[in-house]
This record gives sequence, C-alpha cells and structure tokens, in this order.
Amino acid sequence: MKQFQVIGIGNAMVDVLARTPDEFLTEHGIGKGVMQLIDKARATELYAGLGPARQISGGSAANTIAGLAGLGARTAYVGKVRDDQLGAIFAHDLRAQGAVFDTPMSGPDVVQETGRCLVCVTPDGERSMSTYLGVSEFLGPDDIDAAQIEDSDWIYLEGYRFDGPDSHSAFAKAIRACRKAEGRVSLTLSDPFCVDRHRDAFRKLVAEDVDLLFANRVEMISLYEADTLDDALKSAAAEVSIVACTDGENGAHILSGGERWHIPAVPTEIVDATGAGDLFAAGFLWGLIEGKSMEACGTMGCLAASEAISHIGARPEVDLKELFAQV
Amino acid sequence: MKQFQVIGIGNAMVDVLARTPDEFLTEHGIGKGVMQLIDKARATELYAGLGPARQISGGSAANTIAGLAGLGARTAYVGKVRDDQLGAIFAHDLRAQGAVFDTPMSGPDVVQETGRCLVCVTPDGERSMSTYLGVSEFLGPDDIDAAQIEDSDWIYLEGYRFDGPDSHSAFAKAIRACRKAEGRVSLTLSDPFCVDRHRDAFRKLVAEDVDLLFANRVEMISLYEADTLDDALKSAAAEVSIVACTDGENGAHILSGGERWHIPAVPTEIVDATGAGDLFAAGFLWGLIEGKSMEACGTMGCLAASEAISHIGARPEVDLKELFAQV
Repeated sequence: MKQFQVIGIGNAMVDVLARTPDEFLTEHGIGKGVMQLIDKARATELYAGLGPARQISGGSAANTIAGLAGLGARTAYVGKVRDDQLGAIFAHDLRAQGAVFDTPMSGPDVVQETGRCLVCVTPDGERSMSTYLGVSEFLGPDDIDAAQIEDSDWIYLEGYRFDGPDSHSAFAKAIRACRKAEGRVSLTLSDPFCVDRHRDAFRKLVAEDVDLLFANRVEMISLYEADTLDDALKSAAAEVSIVACTDGENGAHILSGGERWHIPAVPTEIVDATGAGDLFAAGFLWGLIEGKSMEACGTMGCLAASEAISHIGARPEVDLKELFAQV
Repeated sequence: MKQFQVIGIGNAMVDVLARTPDEFLTEHGIGKGVMQLIDKARATELYAGLGPARQISGGSAANTIAGLAGLGARTAYVGKVRDDQLGAIFAHDLRAQGAVFDTPMSGPDVVQETGRCLVCVTPDGERSMSTYLGVSEFLGPDDIDAAQIEDSDWIYLEGYRFDGPDSHSAFAKAIRACRKAEGRVSLTLSDPFCVDRHRDAFRKLVAEDVDLLFANRVEMISLYEADTLDDALKSAAAEVSIVACTDGENGAHILSGGERWHIPAVPTEIVDATGAGDLFAAGFLWGLIEGKSMEACGTMGCLAASEAISHIGARPEVDLKELFAQV
C-alpha cells in the first residue's frame, strides 16, 4: 500500500470572499464566473473597493485535497506559500483537515506574499475571482519531492498552475515520478480562460499523460475547440481513460471504457459557487479510491459539489462521508 | 452637528472561528461561553489543535461600530493593530463598512502581531473565546485623538480593554474629552471574568462617568455582587441614566428614568453566538441616534443580536436597516 492515495499540486491561496452586487463586477472590469490574474497593485485597488470580507483557505487543488482528507483519504498537497500570516492560515487549514503539506515556505528573501483570491459572490451565487498569485507562482521542480509522488496512487494537477513556466517543469517532474511508480495522473482544466492561454500544452498533456480529466462544459468545448459538448466529450474520451465533465445545473457527464453516464445535479440553493468543481473532483476521486462504479463516483462528485455551493467558501462544512452514505 | 455619532474604543481583533465538539473545550481547558486571555505560545498550541477555520474581523467594540456603520451611522473606531496581514484585514473590513479607523498601526519595532481570537463554536451555537491580545494591548493615551472624541455624540468603551494599564489612562483621556464637549459615555462590561478582574475600576467608572451601561445577566450580577438580577439592575439604574441588560433567550431589560421595560428575544436558530452582545449594542445605540423610545431601542438591539447569532462570525451579513423597518 502506498502512503498516499492522492497528492494535489496547485496554487496555494487564501480566498477573500465578499458579497457584491453585479454592478461591482462591471464597474471594476471583473469577468463574471471566471478567474482573472491580477498584480499586487490591482489587488490593492480591488480590495479597497470590496465590502467587508471573510478569509477562508482556498486554492483549487487544495480544496480538492481538503475534501478528500476530510473523507479520510491519505493525501498530500504541494504548493507555495510564504512564511506570513496568510501562509500560516493556509498551512493550518490543510493540516487540520488531515492532509500532509510540507512544501518549503518562501521566506523574507522574496517580496511577494502568500497568494490570495478576491472572490466576488453576486446575489445569484456565482463567484468571480481575481487572483493575486503571490509566491504560488514560484512553484518549481525543486518543490516536487519525487519520492513522495512515487508513493501516491494518484496525482491531481491544477490547470491554473500552467500559468507559470517553472511549474510546467514541476508538473513534468511529478508526472515522471508518478509514472515510474505506476501511479495515475488526473488533471483539472480549472478555467476557460486558462484553457485559452495554454491550449496546446493542455492538449499535449491530456493526450500523452492524463488518465482522468476533470473539466466543466465550457472548458471541455474550449480545449477541443469543438462545436458541441458531445463532440468535445468524444474527443476527450478517445484520449483519456476517464472523463468527468461537470455541466452546471445539468449535473455531470462521465465517459469511460466506451460507456457514458449522465449524473443529475443535486438540487441546492446556490449560496456561493466557489469550489463546486473542486469538490466535485474530491467526491469523484473518493469514489474511485473506494472502488465504486463510475456512476457512483459521479454521484459522489455531484453531492460534494452541492455541499460546496450551499455555503460561503470552498472548503466542506459538513461530513461528506455522511452525504455519501447511501451511494 | 458633530462629525461622529459614536466612536468605539477596544481590542482590535481578527476572529479565527472553527466548529469544535464540546470535548475540545474540556481537553484544552477552555471555559465555555467566556473569554480567556492567552499568550502567544498557548495561541500556537490551541490553533494547532483546532480544525479548519475561517477568519472574520472581530473585536467587541469594533463589531458594534461595524454594525452602526452598516446602518448608516457616522462612526469611528480606536484600537491597535500591527502593519501585518491580519491588521490589513481588520482595517479594511471596518473602513469597507464605512467607519473611520485611523489609529496608528504598530510597526516592526514590536514583536507582537495583530491580535486574534480563537473562537470555538460548539454544536449548541455557544462561542468560547481564547484571545491573544497582540498589539491591541498597547492602546494608550497617545492613541486617543481628543479632538476626534470631542467631535462625537457618544463614545463606546469596551470593558475588555480594562485588561491593560495604559488603556485605563486612554479611557480616562477619552472620557475627559467626551465630557468636555458634552458627549455621552457608554460602556459594555464585556465578560463576567473581565468584571471579576476589574470590579472596583468598573464600579468607579460606572458610578462617575457612564451614561449608558451594556451588560448581560451574569456580568450585571457580578458587577454589583448581587443576589438577583433585579437587585443588580436596581443598583445600576440608581447610578446610570440608561441600563441595557441582555438576558439570553429572555431577551433584554431596559431601565431608564425610573421606568423598566422587558424586550422579548427574537426567536432564531443559534448558529454562532459570537457578537450577539456587540450587535445588541449597535441596534440599541442606533435607536438612540434615531430618537426612538427606549422600548424601540431595545427591540432594535434584540433584532440585531438575533441576526448576529444566525450565522458564523460577529459582523452583520444582512442590511440591519431592513430588519428595523417595522420598529
């Protein structure tokens, strides 16, 4: 038995969540429902305009790992924070959930701080994210402990981290280590604009190295520049063992071994969509770990996603295992 | 017209809120429902044992000021933070709510950080607080801008800040300035153990300088070392123009000008009691500002308190003005 079941690699972030009217997005040029990268100056400016907020640990892959750890999976996370107060919060919350997190913290020799994501939650529950990457940008091959990766059944790569050249090498190193030890590789496409920025790199990675691909409808269509979701799903299924594609209120589509399943969404009041995709991935991976059917994996994904959108913040607030009891 | 309607003075804090079972309190020697002061080492130890948390600006008087600012009152707050990330969060949240906050931040010449309060929220919704004061302890007379205080109708003093000798002089300076400009003085007793620690000083302050006294049942009885709440309320009413005493699920008792009113509590599911007293004070003071009857002031206090306990964190999440529309 390997020490870890899933190791996630991504942007370590603390979310700064505030409710805003839709006008705030238009006034400040924030794209609704997507993630935009911002520099420190813009982060300062946006934050000054933002209403009272709350701070909850985030980061896409970190949310997935927190969800898995909460379910009892043996997990670790790799991502960069600084030795500042937000970094301490991020590290605490992951470890308190039961995940291993020992990526070296950046010290006072760098000017950047721990990354943060300003999350505007509009009245419809949609989340629009402005991300100051901070030191999370510096994730490089030296941060990948090959022995740790070899000791994991799965790695889970966050598409967002494609926004840094050193991180491509970090991902490559992680994939080599994973493959060497017969581990499996999962990837989430993260965001449609992120797919746009790195389509060729994603396509190559998916075709050559990915066993399990997570995406939502828009990302999936964008990746293959397809006309319809069905076309994109077929292209993906031809390259990847398991495709798990979320589709908002339509639930999720799972494709594997020539078969296809549609999983209906779990009806929930949308309080804050932050983390829905991340927790879908946590639920789905947990199903795989537990040896469940593809359909059951998809159902667990949808249940976990519905929990995430029922409250402010991306980290689970209830025992997901209880939610999964009947699956 | 003065520039400010209420200026609050107290411990500037960021709350670190986590749900814990009751056993966590007994295991770690945390007194249920009260506030205990802890040093940095104990804060580190407790935090390490705490589950995943969320960070929301707090501080008793700051919560009251945030509530008042949200209602549209002209407010300011005086309290010490450091120039660190938690300090920036605290300052942002107050200013974003519309309050003036310009107490000089402590710089890197002090080792202490911005204060934080580890809030354990048990399944019954009760909150048990372990407070690392950090630089909030250093509030001294130099931080009081007499001209600013003179320009306010009310000052609102947080009993917790009696835990620092320099702050006694700070309060004295603020009271002098307030009196000089014919302002009025309100005080909250904050916590039964805090009353125990400083009973003589509180008694003297109440008898000589306080126009409006906020307390809960236990604090009120403790202040006068009375046998019953009625005895304590009578003693308080003999010394103070307005007495506003919360009484948990029994609502609140208001005494003024020889009259007495009982205000029933607003039935609410108790999610997290953090900030209930602070928001009661905000609602009550807002009623006074608006020239409402004592009974209406008490009702506004109870409505604001019920909002505070209906969610995690002490800062209001809905428009209190809408809640007050029918009062």
